[in-house]
Amino acid sequence: MRSPESPVVVVAPDSFKGSLSAREVADAIARGLKRALPGATIRARPMADGGEGTVEAALAGGGEHRTHLVTGASGRPRQATYGLVNRPEGPTAIIEVAEIVGITDGDGTSAPIEARSTRGVGELVRALLDAGLRRVMMGLGGSSTNDGGAGMLAALGARFLDEAGRPVEPTPAGLSRLATVEARDLDPRLRTCAITILSDVTNPLCGAIGASAVFGPQKGLRPEDIAGVDGVLARYAALTERALGAATAGAGAQAGAGAAGGLGFAARAIGGTFASGAQVIADLIGLDEALVDADWAITGEGKSDGQTLSGKAPFVVAARGRDLGVPVTLLSGALDDAALGALGDVFAGCFALPCRPMSLDACIAGADRLLADRAAALGALWRRLPAARPAR
Amino acid sequence: MRSPESPVVVVAPDSFKGSLSAREVADAIARGLKRALPGATIRARPMADGGEGTVEAALAGGGEHRTHLVTGASGRPRQATYGLVNRPEGPTAIIEVAEIVGITDGDGTSAPIEARSTRGVGELVRALLDAGLRRVMMGLGGSSTNDGGAGMLAALGARFLDEAGRPVEPTPAGLSRLATVEARDLDPRLRTCAITILSDVTNPLCGAIGASAVFGPQKGLRPEDIAGVDGVLARYAALTERALGAATAGAGAQAGAGAAGGLGFAARAIGGTFASGAQVIADLIGLDEALVDADWAITGEGKSDGQTLSGKAPFVVAARGRDLGVPVTLLSGALDDAALGALGDVFAGCFALPCRPMSLDACIAGADRLLADRAAALGALWRRLPAARPAR
Repeated sequence: MRSPESPVVVVAPDSFKGSLSAREVADAIARGLKRALPGATIRARPMADGGEGTVEAALAGGGEHRTHLVTGASGRPRQATYGLVNRPEGPTAIIEVAEIVGITDGDGTSAPIEARSTRGVGELVRALLDAGLRRVMMGLGGSSTNDGGAGMLAALGARFLDEAGRPVEPTPAGLSRLATVEARDLDPRLRTCAITILSDVTNPLCGAIGASAVFGPQKGLRPEDIAGVDGVLARYAALTERALGAATAGAGAQAGAGAAGGLGFAARAIGGTFASGAQVIADLIGLDEALVDADWAITGEGKSDGQTLSGKAPFVVAARGRDLGVPVTLLSGALDDAALGALGDVFAGCFALPCRPMSLDACIAGADRLLADRAAALGALWRRLPAARPAR
Repeated sequence: MRSPESPVVVVAPDSFKGSLSAREVADAIARGLKRALPGATIRARPMADGGEGTVEAALAGGGEHRTHLVTGASGRPRQATYGLVNRPEGPTAIIEVAEIVGITDGDGTSAPIEARSTRGVGELVRALLDAGLRRVMMGLGGSSTNDGGAGMLAALGARFLDEAGRPVEPTPAGLSRLATVEARDLDPRLRTCAITILSDVTNPLCGAIGASAVFGPQKGLRPEDIAGVDGVLARYAALTERALGAATAGAGAQAGAGAAGGLGFAARAIGGTFASGAQVIADLIGLDEALVDADWAITGEGKSDGQTLSGKAPFVVAARGRDLGVPVTLLSGALDDAALGALGDVFAGCFALPCRPMSLDACIAGADRLLADRAAALGALWRRLPAARPAR
């Protein structure tokens, strides 16, 4: 019989964006739990959902960090980190688009959005193909670009030409003069490469809920330019779908095509398949194996709201915990009151960082200590359970 | 075997000052718990510590509300509520000084502190004696006065005279001309009346940690006047002790004499004995009887800090829970980070109101809903415990 003083606890949070990485969140929670439950066995399994932190999370269970020199969103060279893991199905690369054209990368956003390109993503994919890799997981999310993935396609051999047959830049500005797409030089090795697109975005490429309209403004697209850029991407998609053939038809309208400024469309066009980032990461890090004989799990994210239940990392942890009979408690930076009812149905208690009235800045600045303190409180409640629970 | 879905939970919070009464806090917590644990049996036992809310809490277990017309701190008449309970040792009145000379009473603070008096407290005690009562519990705390309790003594028959033998007002201003105290007309029935002074203040009447220095400023005493008023009270106390005789000697130096602007001194001088407000209330409301076969208890207060462990209501609940083997969880409006270590040793988890970065005003305005939501989270964690715990 396992005593309440020595539970096995899986700690599997996402990052607290703008504050702590998933690893740092997990470490803080573990520290707090240990304070209240010195006899606890902590299994830290930092999560990710395909956005920033995906490579870091994927490598926690083993694998190697690699870097490759690529072209950043605004044209400057940069060293992009990616991961290499050995999977039963073969060696697999984990790419994080945010590492190449990240919205938090000052260099990448130095050019206006109309001049930014995902060329570097294609450069990295080509390098992986050169190295003999045929399995790539591509974490979308956190990009500064809105080029429909034209840059990636160009780096992989697609040609974008104007009326006069001259190449145009694979950027929103360049594509405004697009007349023809030629795909005959597209890297043939892509046909034997399994590309998994990690994304939790369901927007199509164009239209009212497309990439330009929904994600453009936060990347610097002026409201008055949205319609124009959206039209450019629509024409680009139609021409690209035609050039790439039957398998690509309708790719622009597909859910997820609007992810990462339309990179979702391009990744789909070269044969990629969409997958839930958090589900894939959970598999990569062996979350089920960690949960199967655990007593309790704690997950969390910067802010939990109704979106959390649309497949975000904490929801995936909760779903797996439920399947395996492990209660999963939510400890996030903040909770949206309006979603508490729905969250309460999924989690074994929803808790937040602040221990008193405090500002967002104070929460962010003190996140590490606040997390440890809150985890200690949860551990203290767990420890004082009136009786030992039978081991399962 | 009692299942985790239907625990017996004792909900015994203090009030959240400036926001919710102890009863309102208990109701909100109970509502939240029921949301997560519809099968729970909730035993609401609102607590108090001798300050505001003491009468309300004392009557929760039975008894009557009464009112009596008394003189407020600034001289205006006011209806003061008190409680009457039947105890095994006899009928007992519960007085709350804050009901007579309360700091939150606008009328009571309309006069400057030098002109305020506790005369109304004495009037109520005399009325109780007239009604044949010989057991009085007097909750100190929350007073606007700093008269050393001279007003109460005057209303009970003591005479305060100047050099010329003329009566002076029983106020700081009047006492500055005090030359003689006569106690021969002090109500003789006091000698057979058991007065219990409920207070959690340990300050003496005078000096650096006396009533004037420590509590004077928050009642409006100007810093430059503290020394003068302190000297007036010291002379008043010396003359009063002499007039009242041997049993009263040293009453001003006693811990607690400085409570309620020195009313502690006067209550002690007429034979009262100090007791922990929270301990007495716990007995009055039958807290032990509620805890003895409970699975869990939740307590709380507006703000928990190092002072909480000096006998405040949540600490008393925790101590009794520990004695009876019941885990007691703290759910307060705010937690002082610096005290979390010490609090964590006493409570089965320390939790606070905010669910996200928010202001004090937002916490106060939303306290009822926030409390219910936090309690629901605690209930949700409790409910998902992996296995049923054996009934004890």
